[in-house]
Amino acid sequence: MGGSEAGAPLLESARALGRLLARRGWIVLTGGRPAGVMEAAARGAKEVEGSLTVGILPDERPPSAAIDLPIRTDLGQGRNNVNVLTSQVVIAIGVEDAGTASEVALAIRAGKPVILLQASPEALAFFGALKGAHIHRADTPEAAVEIAATLLPGR
Amino acid sequence: MGGSEAGAPLLESARALGRLLARRGWIVLTGGRPAGVMEAAARGAKEVEGSLTVGILPDERPPSAAIDLPIRTDLGQGRNNVNVLTSQVVIAIGVEDAGTASEVALAIRAGKPVILLQASPEALAFFGALKGAHIHRADTPEAAVEIAATLLPGR
Amino acid sequence: MGGSEAGAPLLESARALGRLLARRGWIVLTGGRPAGVMEAAARGAKEVEGSLTVGILPDERPPSAAIDLPIRTDLGQGRNNVNVLTSQVVIAIGVEDAGTASEVALAIRAGKPVILLQASPEALAFFGALKGAHIHRADTPEAAVEIAATLLPGR
Amino acid sequence: MGGSEAGAPLLESARALGRLLARRGWIVLTGGRPAGVMEAAARGAKEVEGSLTVGILPDERPPSAAIDLPIRTDLGQGRNNVNVLTSQVVIAIGVEDAGTASEVALAIRAGKPVILLQASPEALAFFGALKGAHIHRADTPEAAVEIAATLLPGR
Repeated sequence: MGGSEAGAPLLESARALGRLLARRGWIVLTGGRPAGVMEAAARGAKEVEGSLTVGILPDERPPSAAIDLPIRTDLGQGRNNVNVLTSQVVIAIGVEDAGTASEVALAIRAGKPVILLQASPEALAFFGALKGAHIHRADTPEAAVEIAATLLPGR
Repeated sequence: MGGSEAGAPLLESARALGRLLARRGWIVLTGGRPAGVMEAAARGAKEVEGSLTVGILPDERPPSAAIDLPIRTDLGQGRNNVNVLTSQVVIAIGVEDAGTASEVALAIRAGKPVILLQASPEALAFFGALKGAHIHRADTPEAAVEIAATLLPGR
Repeated sequence: MGGSEAGAPLLESARALGRLLARRGWIVLTGGRPAGVMEAAARGAKEVEGSLTVGILPDERPPSAAIDLPIRTDLGQGRNNVNVLTSQVVIAIGVEDAGTASEVALAIRAGKPVILLQASPEALAFFGALKGAHIHRADTPEAAVEIAATLLPGR
Repeated sequence: MGGSEAGAPLLESARALGRLLARRGWIVLTGGRPAGVMEAAARGAKEVEGSLTVGILPDERPPSAAIDLPIRTDLGQGRNNVNVLTSQVVIAIGVEDAGTASEVALAIRAGKPVILLQASPEALAFFGALKGAHIHRADTPEAAVEIAATLLPGR
C-alpha cells in the first residue's frame, strides 16, 4: 500500500519490494491503479516469471497494465477495507497520504499485521500507540520481506 | 467519531459535544452502535428537544436507542467511508483506536474538514502532516463547535 | 424504489405514493438522485408538512432537491443493498429496469417484505417464485400504503 | 453465479460448467463460499490442472477449499455487485434464489453480458424484458461455454 503520488525513493522501494515478494512466490495485491506506489509494486512483481498480481480497483477506470487480476469494486475509497481484509500481511510504504493512512488504520482494526516501510517518525509514533496495533518497522524492502516471512499464517 | 471503548473524560466530552451540536440545530451523525463515543454523542444530542441523530450501522446488530434514524449498511468497517462522506464536518474525539483513525484518514482523503478534539500530540503531528489535510485542533467541545460553525458550507 | 427513467403513469404513482407515505408520518427513503421514480416519490413526500425524506446516494453527484437527508455512500449500485437493509418495507414501482430489479431481489434476500406496485405479470411471476419471497401486489398507491401499514414492525 | 442451496441437477451442471470454463483457460469467479453452486463450480474448475479460481467472500467465514484466491470484502450481499463488475461474462445457473437474481439484475445494470443456464421460463421472460438486457439462454453447460466464447472482449 502506498501513495498514488510518491517521490523517486519510495517508488524505487516499491518496485524492489514487489520484485522480492514475487520471488518468494507470494501474490502481490495493490489498489490496482496505474499510479504511484501501486503501479511500481505491481511492475516490480511482474519482473519475476510466474508472478501473480491482484488489483482491487476503486472505480471503472482501467487498471495498471501490470495487474494480472483486476477486481472491480466501484466502492471508491471503501475498497481500502477490501485491500487489507484480503491481505495476509499489509506493507505500507512511506505513509504520507491519507488513503494509505486509512489502509494502515483499517488493517490494525482488522487485526492484520502491518509493516511500515520507510515511514516517518510521526507515523511510527502514531500507529504504534493505537489500541491493538501490531506494527513492525522496516527501513529497506529486504527487511520488510524478512519480517513478512515471519508473519504469514502457518509459519 | 470516536472509539467504541473510551475512558470517562472522552465520554463526557462526547456527550457535551452531542448536546452542543444539537443545540445549534445540526444533525448529529455517528457510527450508530450503542457503545463508547458514538453512544455518548448520540445521547447528548437527544437531551435537546427537536434533535435528529443518524447512525451508520456496520452490521445487523441493533443501534443505540439514542439513534433516530439508523442506516443499515452491512459494510463492516467499510461503513467508515460512508460516515465521513455523509458528514459536512468530521469531529474526532481522542483518536486512540484504529477505527477512528481510519475515519480521520478517509475524511482527509475526501477533502472534508476535520476537527481533532482532545487528540494526542502524536495524532496531531501525524494527521497534520498528511498531504491535503485540513486539520483543526480543539481542546474542548465548546471550541470544536465554534470551529465547526466556521467550516459549514455556505457560511 | 423505481427506475431513474419512467413513464408518466409510474411517475404519477410515485408522487402519490410519496405523499401518502408522508401523510402517515413515515420516513420516505429513496435512491436520492434527481431522476425518475426516486425524484417523484421524494417530491410527493415533501408536499406534506413535517415530512422527512432520506436519499442513499451512489456517487458524488448532487441529490434531488426534495431530499432532506442525503447519505453519500460512493458505493455505486452497491448502495442498492443499503437502500433495502435500511427500509422496513420496500415498495417497488413498475420493476422495468435492472437497478430496481436488483433492489427487489436484495430485499427478498434480506427477508424484507416487498410490495410490487403496478408490476408486470412477468415480474410478479418471477419474484413470487423465488425462495423465501414475501411479495405483496398492489395496483394503486393507496393499496400499497394499506398493505405497508400491516407490515410495519410492531403492528 | 447460483444458489447456496441447489438440487442435484443444478449442482451437476455447475461442476461441469466450472470444469469446461477452466479447460478453456478462463478464470472461474464465484461468491467463494463452500455451498451450493459456488462450491460445485469451483470444485469443477479445480479438476483441471493449472486452473485459477477466485472467490468474492461476503464475510469472514472461511472460503471453499476449491478457491485459490479468496477476496474478503465484508460487504455482505453488497459483494454481489463486485462479483458481476469483476466478471467479463456472467453465467447464472437456475436463478431460483434471490441472491442470484440480484446478481443477474446487477449484471444487466452494469451492461455485462449474461447467460442464463437452465433458467425457468419466468426468469427468462422477466430478465429478457428489462431495459438494456443482454440475455443469452443456454440449456447445457457446453452451450453456455460456447456462448461465452463469443462474448469475451477482444473476440
